[in-house]
Amino acid sequence: MSTPDVPRQGIHITEVGLRDGLQNEAVVLSTDQKLSLARALMAAGVREFEATSFVSPRAVPALADAADMMAALRREMSGLHLSALVPNVRGAERAMQAGVDSVVLFVSASESHNAKNVNRRVAESLAGFEQIARLLEGTGVALRGAIATAFGCPFEGNVSVDAVADIARRFADLGATHLSLGDTTGMATPPLVTERVTRLRDAAPDLPLTLHFHNTRGIGLANVMQGLALGVDRYESSIGGLGGCPFAPGASGNIATEDLAYLLEEMGLETGLDVERLIEAAGRASDLMGRPLPGQVSRAGARLALSACDTVPTARGEA
Amino acid sequence: MSTPDVPRQGIHITEVGLRDGLQNEAVVLSTDQKLSLARALMAAGVREFEATSFVSPRAVPALADAADMMAALRREMSGLHLSALVPNVRGAERAMQAGVDSVVLFVSASESHNAKNVNRRVAESLAGFEQIARLLEGTGVALRGAIATAFGCPFEGNVSVDAVADIARRFADLGATHLSLGDTTGMATPPLVTERVTRLRDAAPDLPLTLHFHNTRGIGLANVMQGLALGVDRYESSIGGLGGCPFAPGASGNIATEDLAYLLEEMGLETGLDVERLIEAAGRASDLMGRPLPGQVSRAGARLALSACDTVPTARGEA
Repeated sequence: MSTPDVPRQGIHITEVGLRDGLQNEAVVLSTDQKLSLARALMAAGVREFEATSFVSPRAVPALADAADMMAALRREMSGLHLSALVPNVRGAERAMQAGVDSVVLFVSASESHNAKNVNRRVAESLAGFEQIARLLEGTGVALRGAIATAFGCPFEGNVSVDAVADIARRFADLGATHLSLGDTTGMATPPLVTERVTRLRDAAPDLPLTLHFHNTRGIGLANVMQGLALGVDRYESSIGGLGGCPFAPGASGNIATEDLAYLLEEMGLETGLDVERLIEAAGRASDLMGRPLPGQVSRAGARLALSACDTVPTARGEA
Repeated sequence: MSTPDVPRQGIHITEVGLRDGLQNEAVVLSTDQKLSLARALMAAGVREFEATSFVSPRAVPALADAADMMAALRREMSGLHLSALVPNVRGAERAMQAGVDSVVLFVSASESHNAKNVNRRVAESLAGFEQIARLLEGTGVALRGAIATAFGCPFEGNVSVDAVADIARRFADLGATHLSLGDTTGMATPPLVTERVTRLRDAAPDLPLTLHFHNTRGIGLANVMQGLALGVDRYESSIGGLGGCPFAPGASGNIATEDLAYLLEEMGLETGLDVERLIEAAGRASDLMGRPLPGQVSRAGARLALSACDTVPTARGEA
């Protein structure tokens, strides 16, 4: 809806399907299979990938091929931004050897969730980040922060905005270039989005925010609408909506990249992504998983994918 | 997020599961089964039902029990607002005999869809409404309008806002008390919502608007967010997201009442609905259909339905 003279506002989408998606799926893919999915994503314009996690292969077999995956992506195309989660110094070293552009350091805003997730107190996690930050100095590898359970915790319920703001300040002090707020179990709501974004802009004004919503309760894209209203221009999503929710079996997890890109395109925003190609990539992901994925646009098709009158049964008084 | 002194803004939700939902499901329910679902909905606070359609039973066997359904609902509880679709004068007569509070007259903004749906030109449909309006005079039964394909047509693609506005004006002239804009195949987008609501407020300023979105492309609740931003306070939804999309097999249809109510409650709006009881009603609907329904909140549970730490497998470095 913008005039040709006015450039459309750009939104950055980081594709997390290869990491957050696959980490939470039952099917383990080979590096080649993951690469086939990555190619389909690149064909759709994806250039920013959360590519893998350098955790212990015993802990996460699905991502045991972290270094190989990084190498394969690098060979595939230049100009990509590849980030990877690292849980500790050893992981950071492996990630740097593998040629990441940025490492993602993650901690939960909730003590219970951090304990369950990484077996550490929040303060211990943050202290560990200091070591990693020193390791990265002068390497050109950027540090990104990620706060899990930033909008609520499946064990503790509500999570205070103070807890989230304190961690954000620590990441700012560490020289983080970006901070992602993770809606780990889909507990974000539009008012919470407003509260947290507003507060963090005050606590860490020079730290760009990324919103990572889950669609567990069906309001992932409603939360994106609130983010857009607040001027947040970075989001994370997973192709097809890969990655379920370990806390609520049967529930969905990440918002689907193709659904997000569709919404943003229709809002007149520039993503650099091709929705039709994303639908193909979602199909690829679904085939690899051997199950239908929760994304909606991939089932319905593009908005102007028309039906031929005679292929549709006569509706009978629809309104 | 409102203070106790300030009443929360009210949003009206019309439950269309018994009509729009069931009309687009493969399983045909008995009147008793429908009533069991209606009871669960009433227990959740639902008081406005689009209860049935007085179309020919041969055309829509799922709603052949229209008169019996109306009678059963009336016996069940007083203070309900029961509306029913009527395709013609005969349907309107049956509806009035059955004791409806309002009849819903529907027409498509797209000629192709109207032809497919009711085998009539739009102008013919509108002319037929004149007869029905005269029939209703002095009866106390209200007339409501519904415009299908108000945001796009599966056959023609984009639908002009002029076409929608013209029909809205006709409904206003007929004395309609409400007008619903139907997103028949999930082609609504936030900019289209803004365009149509703004234009119709100009074309028919005294005609309250109701927005009926479909989640076919995953953005049903994002469109609701836009409606709320525009101050629209009436929405239609279907329990569990009952009712698929005949135009895109596998795609979802109506937005789920429990998901909508959850969003509105979290936005601090007053719906009169109990989300936990809606989740139960959605479970009932799913049992009756013998299939899982697309609603998300019913799978995930309420926002503060917490997990016990030890029932959840240790996550392995989630962010």
